Amino acid sequence: MNEVRIGVIGTGVMGTDHARKLAGGIPGARLTAVQDFAADRASALAQELGVLAIAEADALIADAEVDAVLVCSPDGTHAALGLKAIAAGKPVLIEKPVAAERGEVEALMRAEMAAGRKLVQVGYMRRFDPGYAEMRRVVASAEVGSPLFMHCQHRNESSPSYLTSELIIANSAGHEFDAARFVLGEEIVAATVISPPEPRHAPGRQPQFIVLQSASGTVVDIEVYTDARYGYDVQAELVCEEGTVRLRPGPPTSLRHAARDGLVVPPDWRARFADAYRLQFESWVRSIVTGQSNEGSTAWDGYMTLLVTEACLKAWSTGNRIAVEQPERPAFYQG
Amino acid sequence: MNEVRIGVIGTGVMGTDHARKLAGGIPGARLTAVQDFAADRASALAQELGVLAIAEADALIADAEVDAVLVCSPDGTHAALGLKAIAAGKPVLIEKPVAAERGEVEALMRAEMAAGRKLVQVGYMRRFDPGYAEMRRVVASAEVGSPLFMHCQHRNESSPSYLTSELIIANSAGHEFDAARFVLGEEIVAATVISPPEPRHAPGRQPQFIVLQSASGTVVDIEVYTDARYGYDVQAELVCEEGTVRLRPGPPTSLRHAARDGLVVPPDWRARFADAYRLQFESWVRSIVTGQSNEGSTAWDGYMTLLVTEACLKAWSTGNRIAVEQPERPAFYQG
Amino acid sequence: MNEVRIGVIGTGVMGTDHARKLAGGIPGARLTAVQDFAADRASALAQELGVLAIAEADALIADAEVDAVLVCSPDGTHAALGLKAIAAGKPVLIEKPVAAERGEVEALMRAEMAAGRKLVQVGYMRRFDPGYAEMRRVVASAEVGSPLFMHCQHRNESSPSYLTSELIIANSAGHEFDAARFVLGEEIVAATVISPPEPRHAPGRQPQFIVLQSASGTVVDIEVYTDARYGYDVQAELVCEEGTVRLRPGPPTSLRHAARDGLVVPPDWRARFADAYRLQFESWVRSIVTGQSNEGSTAWDGYMTLLVTEACLKAWSTGNRIAVEQPERPAFYQG
Amino acid sequence: MNEVRIGVIGTGVMGTDHARKLAGGIPGARLTAVQDFAADRASALAQELGVLAIAEADALIADAEVDAVLVCSPDGTHAALGLKAIAAGKPVLIEKPVAAERGEVEALMRAEMAAGRKLVQVGYMRRFDPGYAEMRRVVASAEVGSPLFMHCQHRNESSPSYLTSELIIANSAGHEFDAARFVLGEEIVAATVISPPEPRHAPGRQPQFIVLQSASGTVVDIEVYTDARYGYDVQAELVCEEGTVRLRPGPPTSLRHAARDGLVVPPDWRARFADAYRLQFESWVRSIVTGQSNEGSTAWDGYMTLLVTEACLKAWSTGNRIAVEQPERPAFYQG
Ligand SMILES: [Mg+2]
Ligand SMILES: [Mg+2]
Ligand SMILES: [Mg+2]
Ligand SMILES: [Mg+2]
Repeated sequence: MNEVRIGVIGTGVMGTDHARKLAGGIPGARLTAVQDFAADRASALAQELGVLAIAEADALIADAEVDAVLVCSPDGTHAALGLKAIAAGKPVLIEKPVAAERGEVEALMRAEMAAGRKLVQVGYMRRFDPGYAEMRRVVASAEVGSPLFMHCQHRNESSPSYLTSELIIANSAGHEFDAARFVLGEEIVAATVISPPEPRHAPGRQPQFIVLQSASGTVVDIEVYTDARYGYDVQAELVCEEGTVRLRPGPPTSLRHAARDGLVVPPDWRARFADAYRLQFESWVRSIVTGQSNEGSTAWDGYMTLLVTEACLKAWSTGNRIAVEQPERPAFYQG
Repeated sequence: MNEVRIGVIGTGVMGTDHARKLAGGIPGARLTAVQDFAADRASALAQELGVLAIAEADALIADAEVDAVLVCSPDGTHAALGLKAIAAGKPVLIEKPVAAERGEVEALMRAEMAAGRKLVQVGYMRRFDPGYAEMRRVVASAEVGSPLFMHCQHRNESSPSYLTSELIIANSAGHEFDAARFVLGEEIVAATVISPPEPRHAPGRQPQFIVLQSASGTVVDIEVYTDARYGYDVQAELVCEEGTVRLRPGPPTSLRHAARDGLVVPPDWRARFADAYRLQFESWVRSIVTGQSNEGSTAWDGYMTLLVTEACLKAWSTGNRIAVEQPERPAFYQG
Repeated sequence: MNEVRIGVIGTGVMGTDHARKLAGGIPGARLTAVQDFAADRASALAQELGVLAIAEADALIADAEVDAVLVCSPDGTHAALGLKAIAAGKPVLIEKPVAAERGEVEALMRAEMAAGRKLVQVGYMRRFDPGYAEMRRVVASAEVGSPLFMHCQHRNESSPSYLTSELIIANSAGHEFDAARFVLGEEIVAATVISPPEPRHAPGRQPQFIVLQSASGTVVDIEVYTDARYGYDVQAELVCEEGTVRLRPGPPTSLRHAARDGLVVPPDWRARFADAYRLQFESWVRSIVTGQSNEGSTAWDGYMTLLVTEACLKAWSTGNRIAVEQPERPAFYQG
Repeated sequence: MNEVRIGVIGTGVMGTDHARKLAGGIPGARLTAVQDFAADRASALAQELGVLAIAEADALIADAEVDAVLVCSPDGTHAALGLKAIAAGKPVLIEKPVAAERGEVEALMRAEMAAGRKLVQVGYMRRFDPGYAEMRRVVASAEVGSPLFMHCQHRNESSPSYLTSELIIANSAGHEFDAARFVLGEEIVAATVISPPEPRHAPGRQPQFIVLQSASGTVVDIEVYTDARYGYDVQAELVCEEGTVRLRPGPPTSLRHAARDGLVVPPDWRARFADAYRLQFESWVRSIVTGQSNEGSTAWDGYMTLLVTEACLKAWSTGNRIAVEQPERPAFYQG
């Protein structure tokens, strides 16, 4: 395959962003079609980018001009669309979360195993962020010893009114779970959740403090605060036996102005993870062309993140430390 | 009182350091006597500093040339010496921990209340560190809203072989407990402890991860790692509703050399808290001269820190979240 | 034009790097041919990348499979190859410096003007570095006022033995001259050079300190130290009336290890300017496809940088402040 | 001498600050008297601090309760008051500049040599700033090689209307000249001045860019911008053969708030140099008590700084590089 022709399902904020990037910005990729349940929105984007608007997701998946599918539709549709892409034998990159129910991911994995090759990648793009990648490299190389702690902070400037304390765990924290598994290179086995009070400006949404423990004992603590006001901010420090590695995100310049010296903090994730998204797409396209697997999240990774999420929800509602179920990892997903 | 004449009990590493500072470095203070159970050590220091060596602690406390007493002797003797200073009507600054048993601190408090004035200060010097003081100011002013989280890291380069996992909680973590109470301005009500594995180079000593919650719900997480190898490092970030404040310790210069750009990390606490110790002594002396109370830890603070410690030890041994006992605060210790 | 087919002349260190990037890493570009005077070297690279090795530069420029030419051959050949590309009507990106003699650049400009369209871009890739681009944006927007100073430091870890004090000005400093013109958006009119002594480990090579002044009076000072030992380091601070902007380069993580806390400094420019090179190529390819000009250095920019260089060399040899010649800018190169 | 009793001449902003520090904040020192030509101002301060107000400077110098004199009166009176203190055999700390005319400093030096002991210290307090002290240590130890460059920036938030371009060189830059001599441990031999345009909000005051060269060739560049708006900011980077040392001033915390992450920049020098002033006074008092010389600026240092200033003024008015006169250093001021 010389050039990967991509169809995008779902042209909301994220799907539109992704479609624009794929239309010219990713070597070896060509955007050929977009689809959205709001047909007007899809048409407008298709016209802007000079690609086809297809009315139905099924038709897009089946289209002869589509080699691979990017799923950015509403969360509830992710798994079903993934199954259809597998049925069509086409690689599919599914925005996170891969599913809301474990049964859906199990079905995805069964279908993929039946197909005999990995077709699903889950859009946990942080795996392609140079900072997280460096943390993983440090763990794997053991050059400053084994990991003891991983301290994580995830802050949004503000969040939509439908976001609840529960959804903060069920949805916002997912990137952190996947990142911890990726950096540490092992499963999470237990979860504890301790919550501070709701901030006054965001009633009904407690920030969350989640403490995970990995198979070999590393303690991972995660602050998720989705109404931090000052901006979008994702931080992490990995503490190993002999040294620590800290993310150092931020703009390429610092500013001294108006009695402050430092960085401008952006309001959303776009600048922070622009490189990660680009590198994720490049890697996905390369893995399709070469048939080689990449660092991206597999269906298994999506599954285990879901099990961590379930444990956290239970830990939150009970106040107890909850073990994360550890199903046997199929040989298909090993190595 | 024009000049406060100070006697130092205990001339180990810390007592010697303190004695040298008091001998000329603190305005309004004059070192007049030192005592140690190792008489030679006390004599040598007394000669170096031109002060009196006194053989017995009781005699030092009673000495007419001693207006106030600094207790740096072994931990087990702190409370008893404090009682004797109170009996002599002399202000006493006791290195932390103020006592190992709660009964000892209760006795101290009773004696102090009977004396009718505050004579005891506990040497939690971080209260005088400009960084922690700024954090407290930010909380008190509410200028970036109420506190939600306080993330703390305490790392030593290495630790003596007698230090155990338990002592890390019982002793090393004490500064963190007092600092959290000081910054937040309220009591700690619950504790959870989750421990990563022992590092290979320090068998028998698990680093500890302690999660506290304050009366109004702020979550305080504390990493204590006493064998971090790269140096002595104390960090904290206070996360409030609308902004965060982070300690920014370190040397007055940065260095680019040998493929690294950044700070030199010192091996111990001396450089990190030199200002805090100086300001603690200045404040103590000023409070003695003026009779005004200061920001320092009182016997009550030492007591509550001990109760937090007890809860943490129980949380660690049981794996459960443990409530911190909340005795009624005597009026004497209010305000 | 759908895809730009690129031929690379010169497969030394930089040409090889560039060829690898163009072979798959730049959307809309395809590497089709490489050439080097060392035929073996070109063949090996051609084989690695699955492209054609062409024996002669002229043949590469003429090749029907080559739409655009990247010139990475030895400095002395740059201008002549540029002229041939213009003669062939093909866009050409020439590594800096565009020429050693002003007559050569004048010939390039004449040829380009005769051709009636801009075909030459000079490889001052810093214009595509997000940090310098932000500095330019700040100047153009005047959001912190007009520029007063620009402080620049350029440090290499070490340099080849043929590098002389004179070549440090004539060659190493070129990136700084172009960057200053780019950021400030105006010409440099005067130069002063003041040199510290040779470092003991690099006899025969004085670091240089160059002070330029722009048309409106901004003072630009440039340290060039090519034997700094600790690594490759390019810094700049732009001081405007009401605030300053500083480059904040460096790795995506910081490290605490071995008594140091901070950044690892790389030994060469590759990591520092990887984004700049990628963005330069993307922009070049896009400008070829769309026929729109970009932010890249034109032949005029290469010319003016050469005149600044000449003034600096004269300032250095005489010890005087030297005016930079200001030829009239052809309308072709305006706007 | 057990306690040094100090009289302060001049109770303007700086004299008042200093008097308050000396009244209780400096070990071994006691403030006993203050004087100001505005008698009311002196009386009010005397009352606040519980010391004597003396009407005439001569009387203060002569007073039996005054062991040492701090001169904070208007610049034009510094040298004459210094002479009187010498005549009285009393140590005197003179705020910078020590004099406006070289003849005045020569007279001071002659008087001091005649008295046979060093009585004069000039208030260049940066010598006691831990950052500059570390830079000096690095040069003296040669641990990263010999110095090649020293890049300095001095920025005020705003400046009084009487400040002119000339006074920026004659007065504001003095701290930089003394600091460079102190850090490098050698004399400045040449000066060049190049000025950017006046900022629009401060007409009549050009920022200045001064390039000095030391005896062994180190290039020292100094930006002085007294109307920088964003705050008070003093920076410096020392570039040695194998590494660089940079000042790292700033508050003990950093702040994330309102779309910014970094430091709060104070409007004036008080916070920035609070430690330096304290350490300067402590060192001065200790040197008086012990009779040992300290790191402070001597009359010779004040003299040489004045000669550098004269060269800079001439360089500025002529546009030429100007040699700094190098009178022979009296044996009295050596070592
Ligand atoms: Mg994502
Ligand atoms: Mg302590
Ligand atoms: Mg280049
Ligand atoms: Mg001063």
